[in-house]
Amino acid sequence: MTTDTVLKETAVCVPGLNGADVCLGGIAKGSGMIHPNMATMLCFLTTDASISPAVLNGALHTAVWDSFNMVSVDGDTSTNDMVCILASGKAGNDPIEADTPAYDLFVQALKKVCVTLARQVAKDGEGATKLLVCKVSGAKEENTARVLAKNVICSSLVKAAMFGADANWGRVLCALGYAGEPVDVNQIDVSFGSRQGKIEVCKAGAGIPFDEEAAKKILLEDEIDILIELHDGEAGATAYGCDLTYDYVRINGDYRS
Amino acid sequence: MTTDTVLKETAVCVPGLNGADVCLGGIAKGSGMIHPNMATMLCFLTTDASISPAVLNGALHTAVWDSFNMVSVDGDTSTNDMVCILASGKAGNDPIEADTPAYDLFVQALKKVCVTLARQVAKDGEGATKLLVCKVSGAKEENTARVLAKNVICSSLVKAAMFGADANWGRVLCALGYAGEPVDVNQIDVSFGSRQGKIEVCKAGAGIPFDEEAAKKILLEDEIDILIELHDGEAGATAYGCDLTYDYVRINGDYRS
Repeated sequence: MTTDTVLKETAVCVPGLNGADVCLGGIAKGSGMIHPNMATMLCFLTTDASISPAVLNGALHTAVWDSFNMVSVDGDTSTNDMVCILASGKAGNDPIEADTPAYDLFVQALKKVCVTLARQVAKDGEGATKLLVCKVSGAKEENTARVLAKNVICSSLVKAAMFGADANWGRVLCALGYAGEPVDVNQIDVSFGSRQGKIEVCKAGAGIPFDEEAAKKILLEDEIDILIELHDGEAGATAYGCDLTYDYVRINGDYRS
Repeated sequence: MTTDTVLKETAVCVPGLNGADVCLGGIAKGSGMIHPNMATMLCFLTTDASISPAVLNGALHTAVWDSFNMVSVDGDTSTNDMVCILASGKAGNDPIEADTPAYDLFVQALKKVCVTLARQVAKDGEGATKLLVCKVSGAKEENTARVLAKNVICSSLVKAAMFGADANWGRVLCALGYAGEPVDVNQIDVSFGSRQGKIEVCKAGAGIPFDEEAAKKILLEDEIDILIELHDGEAGATAYGCDLTYDYVRINGDYRS
C-alpha cells in the first residue's frame, strides 16, 4: 500500500561544470513514517557527471544531511529507506574532485535536487494540506538549530494549529522550549510567512500586536514558513514537515474499514 | 479555556491504619499537553492521616512517579502543573513513619488514588475516545520499561490505529524499536486486551494468526490494554495515553474558527 498522492520529481542543470553541462535528476516516494533520518522513503538520483564513487558519496551525504534528514511527517519511523545516486559520466566533463570549486557547485545542485524532493515528500505527508518549513537562524551551533527546527515541525499542537491557519506562536515557543537545547527564550523572534507575505508575531519571547486577518491569509496558503531567529550566533537549519489533519487520522485509523 | 469534558475525582479508605480508618481523596483537571511529567494539569489531594510533611512528601513523589509521570496525551508539554497533598491528621491514627508497613499501605492507597486520576486524565485527553494503557513487563531495568511504555502511547500511528480499532501490532513493535532502549525484538510478545477479553497478536517478534473479528471487538471498547512482554527480566512499567482522533485535530486546529 502506498499513501503517496503525487509524483515527486525534479532536475537541475549546471552549465559549463569542468568543461561540460552537467545535469542531475531525481524521483522519490514517501508519505508517512518519515523520521528522524529518512525512513519509509525511496529516492533515486541520477547525474551525467563524471565523478568518482567516493567523491559522489561524499556529495550525497552532504546533500541528504540538509534535506531528507530534516523531514518529519508524524514522528514515527521505520527501517525502510534508501537514497542512491548513479553517475554515468556521459556529460564529458573533467572528473569532479573533492574540495574544488566545481565540487562545491555540484554539491549545491545536488542539494537543490534533494531539498526539492524533500519538500515534495513533506508536502505530500499523510493527510497533509500544507508544507511546513521551519527555518531557525541565529543559533550558536548548527546542531541546536537542527534540533529546534525539527521539534517545531514535530509538535502535534503546532501541526494542528497550522491546519487551522492559526498564528499560534505560543505553541512554537513551547516546542522550542522542550527541545532540550540551550536557548534564551527572551531573545526569540517568531514570524510566519508564505507567498502572501510575512508577519512577525513574537518579538524577544513575547507576543506583539499583529493583524489576525493578515496572519490568517498568510497561513491559509499551502506552503508555510515558520521563521525563528534566536539572536545567539550565526548557525541555522531548516526542517520540513506538514500539518496534522482529519485525513491523517482517517488514513492511519480507518484505513481498513 | 479548558478542554476537560468530565470531572476527575476519586477516594479510597484504608481501615485500621495505625489505629484509625484513614481516607484519601483527590480531584484533577487536565486534558492536553500532558507530557513528559505531568504538565498542564492540576491535582489536589487530601487525607485525614496523621503524617509529617517530610514523610508525606516522600509518599507523594513515589505515587506521582508511577501515575501522573506516566501520562501523555499528545507529546506536547507545558510548564504549568501542580500536584499537592494536604493532611489534616483528623483520622486520629498514630503518625505514619517512613519505612514501616503502615507507610507502605499508605503509599499503596495514595498510588491508587493517583493512578485512578491519571487514567481519568488520559481518558479525557483532547478528542480522545478511549484510554490506552500500555503495560511493559519482563524488562531488565525499570527505566527501560518506562521508556518503552511511553513510546508506545506517544506514537501517532499506534494512537490512530487504536482509534480505528485496528490490531496493528507492527506499529507497536515500531514504537518499541525506536525508543533507543536495548531490546531483543525477537523475544517480544504483544497482546491487546479490554473488558471483552485478551488476544495475543505477536509472539517472539512475529505476527501470529489471530481472529481479526475478536480483536476488533476487544479494541472497540473504551479502555484498551496494550500488553508487552520482553522476556528479559523482572521489571515493568505502565503508561497511560489516549487515541488520536478527528476531534483532536478539530480541538487544536479549528478551535478559533
